[in-house]
Amino acid sequence: MRLYTILRRETPELAVSFEEGALYPLAENGFAFAEMQQLIEAYDADLRKRLDALRGHGAAVSADSVKLCAPIIRPRQDVICLGINYFEHAVEAASFSEEAFGGERPCTIYFSKRCGYAPGTGETVPSYPGLVGSLDYEAELGVVLGRAVRAVPRERALDAVFGYTVINDISARDLQTRHKQWYLGKSLDGFTPMGPCIVTADEIPDPQCLAISSRVNGELRQSSNTSLQIQTVAGAISELSQGMTLLPGTIIATGTPSGVGMGFQPPRFLKPGDEVICEVERIGALRSIIGR
Amino acid sequence: MRLYTILRRETPELAVSFEEGALYPLAENGFAFAEMQQLIEAYDADLRKRLDALRGHGAAVSADSVKLCAPIIRPRQDVICLGINYFEHAVEAASFSEEAFGGERPCTIYFSKRCGYAPGTGETVPSYPGLVGSLDYEAELGVVLGRAVRAVPRERALDAVFGYTVINDISARDLQTRHKQWYLGKSLDGFTPMGPCIVTADEIPDPQCLAISSRVNGELRQSSNTSLQIQTVAGAISELSQGMTLLPGTIIATGTPSGVGMGFQPPRFLKPGDEVICEVERIGALRSIIGR
Repeated sequence: MRLYTILRRETPELAVSFEEGALYPLAENGFAFAEMQQLIEAYDADLRKRLDALRGHGAAVSADSVKLCAPIIRPRQDVICLGINYFEHAVEAASFSEEAFGGERPCTIYFSKRCGYAPGTGETVPSYPGLVGSLDYEAELGVVLGRAVRAVPRERALDAVFGYTVINDISARDLQTRHKQWYLGKSLDGFTPMGPCIVTADEIPDPQCLAISSRVNGELRQSSNTSLQIQTVAGAISELSQGMTLLPGTIIATGTPSGVGMGFQPPRFLKPGDEVICEVERIGALRSIIGR
Repeated sequence: MRLYTILRRETPELAVSFEEGALYPLAENGFAFAEMQQLIEAYDADLRKRLDALRGHGAAVSADSVKLCAPIIRPRQDVICLGINYFEHAVEAASFSEEAFGGERPCTIYFSKRCGYAPGTGETVPSYPGLVGSLDYEAELGVVLGRAVRAVPRERALDAVFGYTVINDISARDLQTRHKQWYLGKSLDGFTPMGPCIVTADEIPDPQCLAISSRVNGELRQSSNTSLQIQTVAGAISELSQGMTLLPGTIIATGTPSGVGMGFQPPRFLKPGDEVICEVERIGALRSIIGR
């Protein structure tokens, strides 16, 4: 199933949809979750069955009649990100800045991204004139964990996944490289567009075979497949969890393929008015507009 | 005033103390805050006055009769950290790893640290045998924000500070350097000891004149003063807030002076059974025991 956070009135609410497309708002179908985090923490076989029972029976609305928010509007913790996790992106990143992105890299790079508010599909990403001179896009497969894990072996790591979403890991390349650690250049308000929904893990048993792409103003910029990730979803969850308890609701952005703005010569950074669409197979398209 | 999270029964609770030393548990004095984050969000001149009125009048307990927890046991977001923020620490860090810590650094380094659970004073920090080979300590002045700020000028930045605490920014140097970005090596469970309390900002009008030190098994290792910070508390809050809304409860660890384990030749990393005491003038001492 696909889980949404939607806006019809003043307060965002949750909704679910199935293949047939109708959107079932949870509140008027008897579910009292105020936000996605609560649903994630309560999710088990029984809840899944009760949600599934709405299919074709619950009170439904048309998807066109509601605004879609990010499925998790205010993540409980910072988003954990993988850096340089596709080979061809490693090459283009090093050509932009050898100091920031080059060198031997036998181990996965993990960093984090503050996200006080995640824009949903169709929302604006601020461009920060005067503060940011090199705004860039990064289409990524996002992983949302459903239960706490600690020291989970790779072969059982996917059991902890609640579902998958699409994340655009917006990056200010000047801040990212100038401050050495990438945190600040990744963490400005609005830099974590997420959506359009979370697809539950049962629908994507293997996350390593999904087409992933981005388009800027209609032009295909990134086009790859998660089969080309250097560190897999299962490997990342397992490695991170060796010393760090990952809590339900943890969001992991699994890195971006080649074709980002800094990979072009000269670089092609985003400017006000640009439209960026990030898409991952079986999940959907996340559209962002660059603001002034 | 000094704000504590204490443990007397099963559930942690809040308490306040003043110069005379008695500890006033808030619940039995008519305050209903379940945790420090709630108090921080509610804190204003009126609440301050009502808390202050407990001095010499409220129901009190002896500080010796309770266990002290970290003042904020479960930070709402990751802890924001400044890297290499004292000149002499820059030198020792580069001598340990030129690749990880060397080079020109005209801009402040910001990174983050996941903290699912912050150990209080007297608690154990796990040593992760088999996973971590180079466990290190870093005494730091911790800043806790009291209100949301965005694009605050440096001269008004301290108005946003709720109070100050002591943080030991425990670091796994091997993970920190091997994974390039420092996040993983800083974020293992138990790596953010915090305490013993939060001293409210009115008691520390100038955070840039505080002695800061650490001792390992009684031996003085770090001894400096926050006057030697490269980026000030006000400067960091101002710079971070230019594009990032900092929320009430945000914790900023402002960097460590020279004298950490990796600064010695050969390095002197922590081992099971070691006692680390980090101290900041006017706040107090934070004691940690390295576990097995």
